This record gives sequence, structure tokens and C-alpha cells, in this order.
Amino acid sequence: MNNRDNMQDHKFQRKAIQVKEAQARVMQYAKVLGIEEVPLSQSCGRYLAEPVNAPNPFPAFNRSGMDGYAVIAADTQECNAENPVWLEVIDNIPCGAVPSADLTPGTAARIMTGAQVPEGADAVVMIEITESRDRDGKTFVLLRKPQLAGSNITPRGFELKEGQLVLPAGRLIAAGDIAVLAAFGIPLVKVHRRPKIAIFATGSELLAVDEPLQPGKVRNSNSPMLEALVREAGGEAVMLGAIADDLELARSKVQMALETHDLVITTGGVSVGDYDIMGDLVREKTGEMLFNKVTMRPGSVTTAAVRGGKLLLALSGNPGACFVGFQLFARPVISLMLGAAQPLLPEWTAFMGADYTKVNNYTRFVRARLEIRDGSIYAYPAGIDESSVMVTIKDSDCLIIVPPEARGLAAGDQVKILKLPGEIIG
Amino acid sequence: MNNRDNMQDHKFQRKAIQVKEAQARVMQYAKVLGIEEVPLSQSCGRYLAEPVNAPNPFPAFNRSGMDGYAVIAADTQECNAENPVWLEVIDNIPCGAVPSADLTPGTAARIMTGAQVPEGADAVVMIEITESRDRDGKTFVLLRKPQLAGSNITPRGFELKEGQLVLPAGRLIAAGDIAVLAAFGIPLVKVHRRPKIAIFATGSELLAVDEPLQPGKVRNSNSPMLEALVREAGGEAVMLGAIADDLELARSKVQMALETHDLVITTGGVSVGDYDIMGDLVREKTGEMLFNKVTMRPGSVTTAAVRGGKLLLALSGNPGACFVGFQLFARPVISLMLGAAQPLLPEWTAFMGADYTKVNNYTRFVRARLEIRDGSIYAYPAGIDESSVMVTIKDSDCLIIVPPEARGLAAGDQVKILKLPGEIIG
Repeated sequence: MNNRDNMQDHKFQRKAIQVKEAQARVMQYAKVLGIEEVPLSQSCGRYLAEPVNAPNPFPAFNRSGMDGYAVIAADTQECNAENPVWLEVIDNIPCGAVPSADLTPGTAARIMTGAQVPEGADAVVMIEITESRDRDGKTFVLLRKPQLAGSNITPRGFELKEGQLVLPAGRLIAAGDIAVLAAFGIPLVKVHRRPKIAIFATGSELLAVDEPLQPGKVRNSNSPMLEALVREAGGEAVMLGAIADDLELARSKVQMALETHDLVITTGGVSVGDYDIMGDLVREKTGEMLFNKVTMRPGSVTTAAVRGGKLLLALSGNPGACFVGFQLFARPVISLMLGAAQPLLPEWTAFMGADYTKVNNYTRFVRARLEIRDGSIYAYPAGIDESSVMVTIKDSDCLIIVPPEARGLAAGDQVKILKLPGEIIG
Repeated sequence: MNNRDNMQDHKFQRKAIQVKEAQARVMQYAKVLGIEEVPLSQSCGRYLAEPVNAPNPFPAFNRSGMDGYAVIAADTQECNAENPVWLEVIDNIPCGAVPSADLTPGTAARIMTGAQVPEGADAVVMIEITESRDRDGKTFVLLRKPQLAGSNITPRGFELKEGQLVLPAGRLIAAGDIAVLAAFGIPLVKVHRRPKIAIFATGSELLAVDEPLQPGKVRNSNSPMLEALVREAGGEAVMLGAIADDLELARSKVQMALETHDLVITTGGVSVGDYDIMGDLVREKTGEMLFNKVTMRPGSVTTAAVRGGKLLLALSGNPGACFVGFQLFARPVISLMLGAAQPLLPEWTAFMGADYTKVNNYTRFVRARLEIRDGSIYAYPAGIDESSVMVTIKDSDCLIIVPPEARGLAAGDQVKILKLPGEIIG
């Protein structure tokens, strides 16, 4: 065995760890970032840094659910089609106004949807079933049907009591949360700062997107994909381009990137070849290597290290493996930095929509799409799901977890899947 | 009957139409907008304006899937553990390089993962199962196992043939599509311009988010919610605030908004009360009213009109009704303007997770959350789902479609649901 083989042999002796263990190792270095305030209109898609409790009951007053008349239900108990009850209209309460008088027996108040119901009233009659009459300079409303107490009134605090928890910390802010925050007068929302995430690729074969194709070379598709994935996860992507297979260059790039970013993600250079510089880099003793082999396909060479307390995630250069590595390791780290309550991808049980025959000694994360039929959820493996394959990433909304040593999966079998972010393809 | 009642009577005589008919009426005025080019890094979340066909086979060359040796499989057929075959290593092909020689029988080439396989070679042997020897100034690789032709080589065009459709027009661009666009050298992506959508609220009861609460008044939560929903749908929200219940003011605001925006969405002022100015406005003969009543709950008063070829969607001021009205009518309009292939919310079949007893003569769109258990999908109605209720919007990921006259739904019943955008709450 010559010298080169000796060196390579060292490279081969990677100790593989389980996915869950690898996730735990990177996640313990994912520190939640500082809090900043953003305008309500910019808070969608961020994670709440503090819980929101109702500062007041909601609604804050007994609210009319109809355009009509506020009445005292007891006044209407004897009326019928032939013998209407006449109630004197003593007030007119548009939305946003305050009633000018309390109701007393025999009186009613014209009221609009959303307006504050006057004291004394306990029902609102919809205008469509009323008649009004003017007599002796007064206005009366005629009712021909008894009303139930409470009807068409939303009582104060019906949706939320004062002090009640409305939005827990760690919640992803969506349109419905925006409504709550607006209703409670929160124009500035406390969220965790977005992590700045440096992304670069390694590989002498890489061309930029705007370069013409050249023999033997490929365009760098992983970096733009990672940029989109980082943003989807809520991080701020900082693109550091691609570097050639040069250990010296990689070392200084990683060093610089770690100093000025919260996380560094690289793609490429982690397998066992001569030019796998990221793999070489993390074996240097300048930091702690968390792992350089995971019992998974694709992406078994996924590597993670810590330097100066900051994480370096070195993902495979194979597009499929890069994608899976991001979802399993980078995404939860970013989510934790953002203070997300649930950093991991949701795990569901689904039925196999088709057979999957590939067998492996490692857990396999098979790109697949979900389909919902008759109340059941089916997972269809992507046609081609090799580690190197790029084109099926776009057609996947989940990863089927195929356990190691499984004798293949048949259509109809129950399987665990990890739901990828975004809509179900259907 | 006095004069006011006459006027109101006119208001009550709204002709209700079905949801599908109402959707068809607004959607026919949703013109797809012009095409613009955006940088690849800004294209995520947009809809492709033109299909993308593969400009070259992908991969563009026979690609090594391993770090190892490119060989001629036939050379290895006779070898075994005791009698290795010696192949002369005539080339070293790193990623991004072009082979300097074709393989001939008895030769091999050192090759890296992702590198171009030389002509003549039909297999790559992973380095881990090889030995190398230097003899007489030449380098040899020793193999002790026959290799299958084709192994560890991804053939040219394996993922995509030249000219093959990869991404159809109208597709929402996500991370996987970004990878495809990058790989095919598309730094500028053709998408449809985002519609500019004016949003304003009407109601004298409305306070801005940063105003202190006042008796009888509520903060305007619908406008910020609509802003978030418009952005989620891909539109550009232009916030025009809230106006008091003043027909004159509303008329000029609508006119101005229609002139300079692609769509105008209002909230409030569409029921039958005295101050329902949007309802009054669309009955004026300056434009075509598409509908002002829909056989649905919540949001039966949802109103739509066309003026100068532009759509005005006047949604209910009730938060729940405003939300549902947006999802059923505004969202598909925005999607069509963006050139989306599937403008409507996905319709799925799910099982009821709990009973739902409310009965209505109109189709009801019940806010609900989905849960996936053992491969089945269950819909749980929100605790309170009155039209006026705001707080359950945030906890909903779907709308259960309860048909009119349904005698209530029992847990376990199959129902149709509309999946709302965003993740399933679980």
C-alpha cells in the first residue's frame, strides 16, 4: 500500500452515527438569537419571541351581530303576528359610537352590526323582521315574534378573556395571527433576529448560473437551491459563491465565514476522494468535528463541525443528498435559532402509493409526493431518487423514511414520512 | 312603511348566487398580467410565465457516481480474490476536467465523483474496494471482483433528455425549481408581474393598530390580515387605511384605487344597515355589479363589481367572513393574474374529527384544523366559527364545506375540505 492509499484509508474510517444522534449534536449548538422588534406588516413568517396574552377581553364590549334593534327580550314574550309589541326607539347606535342611554322596559335602540349594545338590552332583532312606525313625534319598532335573550349579541370576552394566552412564544406568524396582533394593538412585534447564513460550494467543476456550459463541468445548482431553502426556513442567506478544490482557500473561506455569520453551510467536498477538501478541513484539529458520517441515504457523508462555538454544516455536493441534508440538519438548526417551537419537520404516517423496492443497510429518505384520496394520504416515491439526482427534488413534498434492512415496501404499506415545507403537490 | 323602510327593503332584495357561479363571475375579469424578468434568486414564490425545456441533456455527460476508477467492465470478468486484474491507470480525472484519453482494454482512469467518464469506460469501481500499485514507473489498479457494465455511472441525459419539458408555465417556483433553473443556466426568470392590490376598510368604529382602545370602537384587524393574505397569494398590497362610513368618501376612494391598482379589496360596509356604504356604492349605475349576495356562510353579503374593466371585491367587515371571502374570491383572482396553473384552493376529502351540528340553508365554510393519524386525515372544526369571530382564523388550516341542509356532520363522516395555504397544523 502506498502513501496515498494510507491517507485514503484514514478517510474511509469514518464512524457513522444515527440521524437522530446527528440531529441532537448539531441542535445543541443552535442558540436562539436575540430579540428585535419588527413592524406588524413585516412580521408574517417570523416566529413570536414572546407569548401574547389578551390585554383586554375580546370583544371589549357586548357587540351587536346584526343591523337591527337592541331590545329587552322580556318585552317581546307576549307578542305574535296579530299582536305586535311596540317599542319606543330611544337611541340610534352606529358602529363605533357609544350608546347614549340605557334601555328600560318598553324601549329599543336602532343598532348597527358591530356596534356596542346598550346597557339593559339583552337581544338584537334583525332589521329584516321588524317594522318601524312614527307616531306623536316618536319612532316605534314593531315586533311580532318573541325574542330569545342573548340572540345576535356577542358578549364581551366571548372570543378571549382578559389575560388569556392567545399566541404562544415560538409560533410562526401567519395572516390569522396578524389579525390578533392588530386587534390587540401591537404595531411592533417581538421576534428573534434572522440568522445570517453563509453559503458556499466547493468544486472545480462548478460553473456559475450565467456561464456557458463547458465539457466536464456543471452549473452550481446547489448554492441557489440552498439560498431558497435558507430563506424558506427563515434565515438570511449570504452567498459566498463557489471555490475550486483547494484546501487552503477553503480553510480561509470557512474561517472568514464563521466569524461574520451565525451558521456556515457548504455543499461539496465531503466524500472520500482526493479533492474532498471539506472532509479534510474538519479533520484538522482547529475545531470539534461533530460527525462526518451518518447512517442515511442519501447524504451519508454529511459532515458537521464546531469552531469558536459556531456550526459548520458541510453537505454533500450531490443535489439530492444536499437537499436531504439541509432538511434534516440545517433546517432544525435555523428553526431553533429563530426560536421556533417545533424545529423538526413534521412526521406523519402515510400509505405507500406504489411499491418501493430498493433495499439498503442505512435509513433511506426517499423523495416522494403526497396525494390525498378519500380521506387517506398516500406517498408516491419519485421516479428516480439517486443521491446525485436533482430533477425530482422539485416534485417532492415529503421524504419517505425507509428503515434500514426493510425488505422493500409495497403499495398500501404504512410508512413514516417527513413532510417538507410548502404545499402538498396532490 | 316609511321612506327609510322602502330604501332598506330595496337593500334586502339581493339575489343570492352560488359560490361557484360567483367565483366564475370574478375570475372572468382576472386578466393575467404582463411578463417581467426577475433574477433567479428573487424568483422563488413567483409563477413561471413560460415553460422551461431542457436546453441540453442532463447530466450533459456520462458522470461518475463514485470516487474510484473508470474501467472497461469486460476487463474484469475473469478476476477474483486470488487472481486480481491489473489495469494500467492512464488518466486522472478530477471533477470539472475533461478526460485526456479514451480507455482501451487493460487500462483504467482514476476518476472523482461527478467527473466526466472517459470514452471507452463503461463502469466506475469505488476506490474503497481497489488497491493501487506502482511498477516500472507506471501506476496500476488491482481489482478482485468482476464489475457490471454501467455501474456507478449516471449516463448522459439520465435525468432529462434535451428538449424535454421540465417546468410547465404557471408553476409556483420553489427551491427544487431554483436548482433546475440554475442547472440550465437561467439567471433571469420570466414571471408575471405581481398585481398591485389596494386594500381599505370602511367603518366609523375602526381604530388603527397603534391607537388606544376607545369605548364602542375596535382596532382594524382586517386590513393587516388582508395585507398578509394578499402577499401570501403573491400580490403587492397597497394599504389605503380605513375610512369612516361616508358614501362620498368611499366613492372617491374606490375610484382612485381602481385607477391605479389591478384590484381593489375592501372590508366592511356590505351588509344591509344604514351605513353600509360599499353595498350602496356598487348599486350605483357607474359600473357592473357582479353579485351582492352569495349562498354561503360566513360572508353571504360578499359583493363584487367591475368598473372600467377592473374588479372591486367588497368583503364583509366580519373577520371570519372577510377571511373566507378572501380565500374564495380574492385569492383565485390574484392567482389568475399571476398566471397560476391552479388558482383555486385544493379540495380534499377528509374525515370529520368531531361532530359538527350547526345546520344552515346556505353552504357553510367552517374553519377547521387538520390532523393526520395512521394515514388518514381528520378535520376538526374550530371551537367557535361565527362570522364575526376573529380568533379562530389563526388556528385553521382548512375550511370544511358543509353542504346546505346537511343534518349536521358526525365524527367519522367524509367531508370535502378546502386546504388553506400554509402548513398543516397537525
